[in-house]
Amino acid sequence: MFDAIVFDAYGTLFDVQSVTQESERLFPGNGSIISRLWRQKQLEYSWLRALMKRYATFDEINLDALRYSLQQIGKEPTDEVVANLAGQYLNLTPFPEVSEALQELNSVPLAILSNGTPSSLTAVVQNAGLESYFEHILSADSVKSYKPDPRVYELARVVFDAPKDQILFVSSNGWDVAGAKQFGFSVAWVNRSSKVQEELGVGPDYVVESLTGLLPVLS
Amino acid sequence: MFDAIVFDAYGTLFDVQSVTQESERLFPGNGSIISRLWRQKQLEYSWLRALMKRYATFDEINLDALRYSLQQIGKEPTDEVVANLAGQYLNLTPFPEVSEALQELNSVPLAILSNGTPSSLTAVVQNAGLESYFEHILSADSVKSYKPDPRVYELARVVFDAPKDQILFVSSNGWDVAGAKQFGFSVAWVNRSSKVQEELGVGPDYVVESLTGLLPVLS
Repeated sequence: MFDAIVFDAYGTLFDVQSVTQESERLFPGNGSIISRLWRQKQLEYSWLRALMKRYATFDEINLDALRYSLQQIGKEPTDEVVANLAGQYLNLTPFPEVSEALQELNSVPLAILSNGTPSSLTAVVQNAGLESYFEHILSADSVKSYKPDPRVYELARVVFDAPKDQILFVSSNGWDVAGAKQFGFSVAWVNRSSKVQEELGVGPDYVVESLTGLLPVLS
Repeated sequence: MFDAIVFDAYGTLFDVQSVTQESERLFPGNGSIISRLWRQKQLEYSWLRALMKRYATFDEINLDALRYSLQQIGKEPTDEVVANLAGQYLNLTPFPEVSEALQELNSVPLAILSNGTPSSLTAVVQNAGLESYFEHILSADSVKSYKPDPRVYELARVVFDAPKDQILFVSSNGWDVAGAKQFGFSVAWVNRSSKVQEELGVGPDYVVESLTGLLPVLS
């Protein structure tokens, strides 16, 4: 039914909130707020850097977002703490169903398209033991911009050399869903926690509660 | 010292949190959360729309952001409620020192450069009785994008036909400060509430606590 399936990584395959535990250990009582602020700022900085044309790698943006978040709640962003927490991004936990679902979806070529740097993406995928499932791990770093810039989605279209709507793009991030649909992909939104749909004038073709929900879509 | 002073509008001259009171009247106990969510989503949608190249006017984005915010806290975004609240944006309260400070700064040509639509900007400025101070009210709508896209800041450079660093850009929004500085303006950050500086790799030339703090900068 589709020529390829392309997955977002952070928040879709990997749980970005799995940094909460280490944040809580380092700053008791603040693990949850640090994790949420950090993710919010990480996204904001990627959009702002892309828009103002001052590219920095996602690894750098991630450190900047963490430093800002710690300062905002009155904590000192020492080099040691920042390096420790940022290191957690190489060991994010995949959502529980990911490995089994990828095995089932594997009859179609699979890829990752993410804002992350090539080295960080390779590390997080390998540390989760998922590397055998993906034909390509594509990074926004190739075009020195960030999703939802159409030039990033174009990377996946080019590599599969397929019509846009023959590629199924899968993301849990509402803004990424809108960007991919605006680009022209067929899009599935993995809405794990009953979030409200973003009001960006364009929405997903499919809404599923987990990657397992993609199986009926493909048959 | 400078050829012109260019002000951001929302959050800098006008207090976007002045919608809290009407939000609280309509949704008791939720005024503050609605006001904060709404502003956050309004900014996100402007950045995302600019980046994904699906322009909508700031008036439209403002409605979308409000609808999303109400839904997120489980409230029904009826047309009546949305129209009522969005209408508050035409009557935002200027910060207390604004009128007096503009009078003192008036020896240099002044302008507004904002993401707002021309009609909404004209209305909010007139309703606050500030129209006599500004030679130009410039809107991002002219280039169908949003700050911090450099093409928006370019509007102010062109209209004053001055070297970038001879224009003082004034904003309370940290991301706008970074965008303007990256573009090449001299920049003052009006940090009214002791916020932490954004980690975007570029910062303000001056930090002041209110517009009154600009007077020593100019003398």
